[in-house]
Amino acid sequence: MIIEQFFTGGIAHSSYLLGANRTCAVIDPRRDIDTYIEQAQEMGVKITHILETHLHADFISGHLDLARRTGAQIYAPKAGNCDFEHIPLSEGDSFRLEGIHIDVLETPGHTPEHISYLVTDTSRGDETVTVFCGDTLFVGDVGRPDLFPGMAKELAAQLYESLHEKLLNLPDFCEVYPAHGAGSLCGRAMAAKRTSTIGYEKKYNYALNIKNLEDFTNALTKNMPAAPDHFSRCSVINAKGPAIVEELPELKALNNNDFIGLIEKGDSIVLDVRCFESFGGQHIPNAYSLDLKSNFATFAGWLLPPDKNILLVTDSQGQALDASLWLRRVGLDRITGYLEDGMFGWVTAGLGTDHIAQISIVELHEKLTKGDETLVVDVRAASEYEDFHIQNSINIPVHELRERYVELDPEAEIVLICGSGHRSSMGCSILQQKGFRKLYNAAGGMTGYAAAKYGPECPMCRLPWTASSDG
Amino acid sequence: MIIEQFFTGGIAHSSYLLGANRTCAVIDPRRDIDTYIEQAQEMGVKITHILETHLHADFISGHLDLARRTGAQIYAPKAGNCDFEHIPLSEGDSFRLEGIHIDVLETPGHTPEHISYLVTDTSRGDETVTVFCGDTLFVGDVGRPDLFPGMAKELAAQLYESLHEKLLNLPDFCEVYPAHGAGSLCGRAMAAKRTSTIGYEKKYNYALNIKNLEDFTNALTKNMPAAPDHFSRCSVINAKGPAIVEELPELKALNNNDFIGLIEKGDSIVLDVRCFESFGGQHIPNAYSLDLKSNFATFAGWLLPPDKNILLVTDSQGQALDASLWLRRVGLDRITGYLEDGMFGWVTAGLGTDHIAQISIVELHEKLTKGDETLVVDVRAASEYEDFHIQNSINIPVHELRERYVELDPEAEIVLICGSGHRSSMGCSILQQKGFRKLYNAAGGMTGYAAAKYGPECPMCRLPWTASSDG
Amino acid sequence: MIIEQFFTGGIAHSSYLLGANRTCAVIDPRRDIDTYIEQAQEMGVKITHILETHLHADFISGHLDLARRTGAQIYAPKAGNCDFEHIPLSEGDSFRLEGIHIDVLETPGHTPEHISYLVTDTSRGDETVTVFCGDTLFVGDVGRPDLFPGMAKELAAQLYESLHEKLLNLPDFCEVYPAHGAGSLCGRAMAAKRTSTIGYEKKYNYALNIKNLEDFTNALTKNMPAAPDHFSRCSVINAKGPAIVEELPELKALNNNDFIGLIEKGDSIVLDVRCFESFGGQHIPNAYSLDLKSNFATFAGWLLPPDKNILLVTDSQGQALDASLWLRRVGLDRITGYLEDGMFGWVTAGLGTDHIAQISIVELHEKLTKGDETLVVDVRAASEYEDFHIQNSINIPVHELRERYVELDPEAEIVLICGSGHRSSMGCSILQQKGFRKLYNAAGGMTGYAAAKYGPECPMCRLPWTASSDG
Amino acid sequence: MIIEQFFTGGIAHSSYLLGANRTCAVIDPRRDIDTYIEQAQEMGVKITHILETHLHADFISGHLDLARRTGAQIYAPKAGNCDFEHIPLSEGDSFRLEGIHIDVLETPGHTPEHISYLVTDTSRGDETVTVFCGDTLFVGDVGRPDLFPGMAKELAAQLYESLHEKLLNLPDFCEVYPAHGAGSLCGRAMAAKRTSTIGYEKKYNYALNIKNLEDFTNALTKNMPAAPDHFSRCSVINAKGPAIVEELPELKALNNNDFIGLIEKGDSIVLDVRCFESFGGQHIPNAYSLDLKSNFATFAGWLLPPDKNILLVTDSQGQALDASLWLRRVGLDRITGYLEDGMFGWVTAGLGTDHIAQISIVELHEKLTKGDETLVVDVRAASEYEDFHIQNSINIPVHELRERYVELDPEAEIVLICGSGHRSSMGCSILQQKGFRKLYNAAGGMTGYAAAKYGPECPMCRLPWTASSDG
Repeated sequence: MIIEQFFTGGIAHSSYLLGANRTCAVIDPRRDIDTYIEQAQEMGVKITHILETHLHADFISGHLDLARRTGAQIYAPKAGNCDFEHIPLSEGDSFRLEGIHIDVLETPGHTPEHISYLVTDTSRGDETVTVFCGDTLFVGDVGRPDLFPGMAKELAAQLYESLHEKLLNLPDFCEVYPAHGAGSLCGRAMAAKRTSTIGYEKKYNYALNIKNLEDFTNALTKNMPAAPDHFSRCSVINAKGPAIVEELPELKALNNNDFIGLIEKGDSIVLDVRCFESFGGQHIPNAYSLDLKSNFATFAGWLLPPDKNILLVTDSQGQALDASLWLRRVGLDRITGYLEDGMFGWVTAGLGTDHIAQISIVELHEKLTKGDETLVVDVRAASEYEDFHIQNSINIPVHELRERYVELDPEAEIVLICGSGHRSSMGCSILQQKGFRKLYNAAGGMTGYAAAKYGPECPMCRLPWTASSDG
Repeated sequence: MIIEQFFTGGIAHSSYLLGANRTCAVIDPRRDIDTYIEQAQEMGVKITHILETHLHADFISGHLDLARRTGAQIYAPKAGNCDFEHIPLSEGDSFRLEGIHIDVLETPGHTPEHISYLVTDTSRGDETVTVFCGDTLFVGDVGRPDLFPGMAKELAAQLYESLHEKLLNLPDFCEVYPAHGAGSLCGRAMAAKRTSTIGYEKKYNYALNIKNLEDFTNALTKNMPAAPDHFSRCSVINAKGPAIVEELPELKALNNNDFIGLIEKGDSIVLDVRCFESFGGQHIPNAYSLDLKSNFATFAGWLLPPDKNILLVTDSQGQALDASLWLRRVGLDRITGYLEDGMFGWVTAGLGTDHIAQISIVELHEKLTKGDETLVVDVRAASEYEDFHIQNSINIPVHELRERYVELDPEAEIVLICGSGHRSSMGCSILQQKGFRKLYNAAGGMTGYAAAKYGPECPMCRLPWTASSDG
Repeated sequence: MIIEQFFTGGIAHSSYLLGANRTCAVIDPRRDIDTYIEQAQEMGVKITHILETHLHADFISGHLDLARRTGAQIYAPKAGNCDFEHIPLSEGDSFRLEGIHIDVLETPGHTPEHISYLVTDTSRGDETVTVFCGDTLFVGDVGRPDLFPGMAKELAAQLYESLHEKLLNLPDFCEVYPAHGAGSLCGRAMAAKRTSTIGYEKKYNYALNIKNLEDFTNALTKNMPAAPDHFSRCSVINAKGPAIVEELPELKALNNNDFIGLIEKGDSIVLDVRCFESFGGQHIPNAYSLDLKSNFATFAGWLLPPDKNILLVTDSQGQALDASLWLRRVGLDRITGYLEDGMFGWVTAGLGTDHIAQISIVELHEKLTKGDETLVVDVRAASEYEDFHIQNSINIPVHELRERYVELDPEAEIVLICGSGHRSSMGCSILQQKGFRKLYNAAGGMTGYAAAKYGPECPMCRLPWTASSDG
Repeated sequence: MIIEQFFTGGIAHSSYLLGANRTCAVIDPRRDIDTYIEQAQEMGVKITHILETHLHADFISGHLDLARRTGAQIYAPKAGNCDFEHIPLSEGDSFRLEGIHIDVLETPGHTPEHISYLVTDTSRGDETVTVFCGDTLFVGDVGRPDLFPGMAKELAAQLYESLHEKLLNLPDFCEVYPAHGAGSLCGRAMAAKRTSTIGYEKKYNYALNIKNLEDFTNALTKNMPAAPDHFSRCSVINAKGPAIVEELPELKALNNNDFIGLIEKGDSIVLDVRCFESFGGQHIPNAYSLDLKSNFATFAGWLLPPDKNILLVTDSQGQALDASLWLRRVGLDRITGYLEDGMFGWVTAGLGTDHIAQISIVELHEKLTKGDETLVVDVRAASEYEDFHIQNSINIPVHELRERYVELDPEAEIVLICGSGHRSSMGCSILQQKGFRKLYNAAGGMTGYAAAKYGPECPMCRLPWTASSDG
């Protein structure tokens, strides 16, 4: 028996290949599945089983793609009522992969239908050696139960039971292989380490040490980080069965005229994935700014309207293909194409552009010091803002800007700031769509601000404070 | 006998491999020589001869690098008085490469020491089948004789004789393999086609049809395009023997502190090779803007001070290596390193930046139409400006901006425009170094202007006018 | 105007891209067309014209594939009566590619319908600067007129006229761009050089210096090298319109059982493309030995039955794909798949193999010296055999072995020898299929024999004699 | 805290990167270290610590290479008395990597100086979360104590104590990260799974369940698999400090003459790494056959004389570089170069070769059935032979053939057989060096024999028996 973990940054997702001698199972595959097929080939095993722990909220699963390519059988929770062909599993079900015995445990809480897979290596012993527990138990955290409106309390109770009555009954030595790691919004405080054991988590996981349901419920349903918009969409798509990636239309290289024509039809948005200084330098009016290099998938799922076609502006075809891959991972499949000759082709055709002035932290500090009438809007999450922020700045998390822009004066000079410049650039693009004209993007963000050691807000640590990974 | 041509864009340079059965010669190699070695290996021949037609003015030759790697013998014009080990060649000299007989013809004019190599394939016949004529005769043009101050008239006379008394005496059927193609500044009007024949050129080359010396001299010494600064440096380096590329120090990845330290020492310049909108968005104060994708080598040789070390700002390490390659091709070897974490690392360290506002042609037109007090400075060559320009714009070619900035008011609002935005971005960076603050780069340039069909200056052709390749 | 040549080794084929400012033509494309599309993209031109000089005998043309991918228009000789959609061209027809004017000349002889394209660059002059003459005129040779049974004399007369009355009337300076170079069997004695001029060929091409039709006909129809079998098939396929490569079934990875099943159905052959010592070491009984690295396409077209499916044995999947590419280039499209786990998977499944003993030249010499009763069969072409052979060896060219094996005793000990070991390995595999059991492949062949300086046959040159490129 | 495992097939070696926020440690690095540096770069951490658990016997460690490239500090067991610069560690020592606390435990047994590293993630808890236990405890096995002649009993006792008094006192939940996995000869029966936990191993590891020292000692010192020759060399090299890979001479491409010259000097061996059928087809006389694809490093360390230079025969330069990498991993640094033009260049130069007849299992069976006087020598390990072998075959493990060839008649017809054909090909090459001439290599080996279901020896399982991974 052998286990390979596949960690996908950006969505901080862990999937697994569980190999026997000649066959193997893939657990919670991502949508771009070549890597599983290559790994199986290299190991000389055939993919025969595809195991879903639950209907993932934060990404589109590759179960159908993988089944189609390999002929493997999909196993999924019965309570998920999935529309695709699968073997439905309930508490007590079990099946084998050669000498590997797999038991099913229902572990609802993060989602109502969640199950875990208990793995026994019969060639070595008759106890569970490993549990694939999906989003029920993480390294240093547990799955958040607050993603279903109105069900948080109920799910928290289920989760409490799943953990204390079920998972924690596994042997201390049992290895824990969860579906996410640090950076995922399916929990709040996951550790960087990607695997753990039941015994260690039982002892040192904060959530498992809350010993009554009420406190547990409070801890896991209050002051939780906001959940991106696509979290409510992905589960539905995963249950229904996502489109097969191979059948999606190919990404088109669009010339200026076609691009303009599609914009004018009104059912498309322009998504510019270049870095913020390029976007600031020049961009197509009304484009969204979402830097491909910074937590792109999460914010794409969060900020972009899912009912529009997407027209990409990129530095290269490679970047367009990469953007397309990530958009699909969060269920944004309506990608029409990319501007073939890029912004250079656009401006040399004499077409109009818009701009966002970038401002370095040094310049921002001068501006504030000399008393310019400037409003600083900090678009990070509330918790980040609370940690440390610029005096007199106000906090509107970037996803809230879509509605809360009305609180701001469109004629005022406004500097947007975040951790490093990415989210503030997103915010600038959103405000610009609403008619704001005197916008600055604070390039470098609060990371730069701390590094420059400005003002009383500067933290007292010797090493500069660093922005969280979502930039 | 077999001939392979290697065309290097950017410097529009043609070098050649002349292959016999077991050995071969390389004619006028460029400085990065791997491609010759690979080609020879693939053909199963050994590089034994390296032939220089003359001391190239526009690029650094790879003769020493190639000799060192292969052990091949260098052949060069005796009149060049070269310092490196070589076999000096004069009129009437000859040598063999197995069955290939090579005669030397002195063909001065483009440079004083220029020679041509007449190739006879003795297995087929006893006449010259091919001439490697360097920069004496081009497809559709001849080598310019005006690169040596004060010698233009004398060289023009030599060139006239080299052509009419020597090269044109070759058979009509003789193939002409020159050292440059369209885009090179070693001539004025080369055709895109990369080879020709004596007979065709004799009949259809404008310069060969000027049948008296005076007219010829006038045609080739008056109203010539400006010669980049490095043209006077490269010949000297080539004669002395350039540094061996393998012995040059490796490109260093520099962190912010090291980078700043080197700037402060005062013997370095910052060279930013990113696209103009990124440079415009944010850049290190006093950096030069030279987009790697647009005629980079020529303008680097032209605009950068050769006695300074170069600190690169790039989007990636790959781009830094590429910039380094091109800088070496024009003899700028003092490349210290590149900013390892790029502009993102710079601003998140809280360091200061500068900016150049980009302006699209649509916006420029609005600005001009509504009567803003804006000076439009067209930084293209005089001939381009004469073809077609914006009313009331003034013309200062970008290389002249280095001195002629004094003609402009540093407090005025100035829009720089060129063919597409690259040279104007260079110009903006130069003016910004001189203290100009209200600068705009016209993104899209006159190509965009023509495409947008603005103003009475718009040409009447049905297809939009396109900027020359140097952007 | 610009011209790029694409030389394809193995079939020694030259195709061309003729570029104007925005559009271009491709002349005589090969079947795998990505390279043309990439080159056009790099040059920024659109492929709008596909020009066929004639119905190629030695390879399958890519005209249909290229038309389908690019939407370009195919131009082909009217006399070819082609079935695919095209613009039929006859003597005197002309068309333009922007500033490039193209005239059509009928130049039958190599094939009855052959035409040549005369190119005038109107921006430079009104005479033909370049001729794309297909297989009418080569560098150092002319197209052979003997490929159509019974028509040799008639075609030779046409060729004589096409050359002397048409092509040789072009200016001496006109560049000659033929469809083949050294190594092609469409001529006998092509030079390695890949382009020439009318003037040079007129003076130094042996065939053009035969000044009466009778001698010309004799020279070009007698003692010609044998024409491979596929030469008669390819023309027909090219006229009818070859299958579109993208529509051909994908190469299958076959397991042992599927492979055996397909062999047993009887409509397939096994083609082993590994090197001769691997084949000799072990191979599937009745497999053909054709080393992928040595003139593979020509001998595949020549020796393999075209009405059978092909099952490949290779060292790797990459080698299978490469073999597949080359087989398609000569019209062998019935490629089912390759043995996925190779010979190692075959023998570890306990399946049977056959063998060919390799013998080095040293061992062969010992054997002959000590008087073993061994027959040496030299499978090179008659002309090669005449140049130099081992005393008492007999000559049966490898393609003739398919019938002439009856002249040999299947019980005798036979050593097959060729230039280096490739053709003799092919021959061994053919004889083995016929029941011969005491076979040796002379590894190193006559090249090794000459290098070892054995016997009175050893040539007196100081450098060892080398086998022709077809190994 | 984050842990990355690097598994190196062939030597079945696991090394680790233990990452904190800004720095990381590498545990038991292999000698080709780029992969660690790349991983650290990707994770944005600096390699500051290099931890050796013990002086590895089966491979050369990369501690010095990594220290030199990164400037990191080496930590190694004090009892190892290592000659290179390092921080010596003893029981009770501890150090920190930011928030990670590391304790040292002396765990001798596999080797006398062996230590283990106990990792505490202070950000989560104060107990050991992970132990890097080197070769003391494996998944499903323990380190063999029998590698030091005469010390087996003593080391077994130490190991027993290290396990029962030390490692098993760690919490059940503690993760076990060993230095080897299935396929390594540092243990006998490791599981395929690459990590485990203390609790699971305590319960299900056979060796940990032997509860008295005498039985433990017997189990781990009797009937152990033979240890390859290099096991005694590598420890010494690792303690002394291996040569820095970057300082080793580059692999030379050798022509035939140079190759022959080096053979004739007498201080070199020829190592042919091609597949067995190629080797069988033709090889340089007296070459060793060691297929690069099959457990190459172990058998190279085992069978090759360490005091000779190595001359490689390969299919390609890439294969030569690969062979060189693997040879260095087992401390065979005296690699002079490879035969540049391969066997094809050898035979076409008329040079002599030798051969080994391959025989498929079908043919072998026929031979045995019809009563040929053939001796079958099974060169697998004794345990494999005992499992299942051909009637009347005799067993001489391949490494014993070097001495035990004297038991065989050099004039007899001998078939060598192993699992699949690799070890028997090695054996054939060894016997051929000793003058044996009538040798056959049983291609497919006992795997093929079982698959073909021959004879009474065939096992009764439904799926065919498969050879162990060392072929």
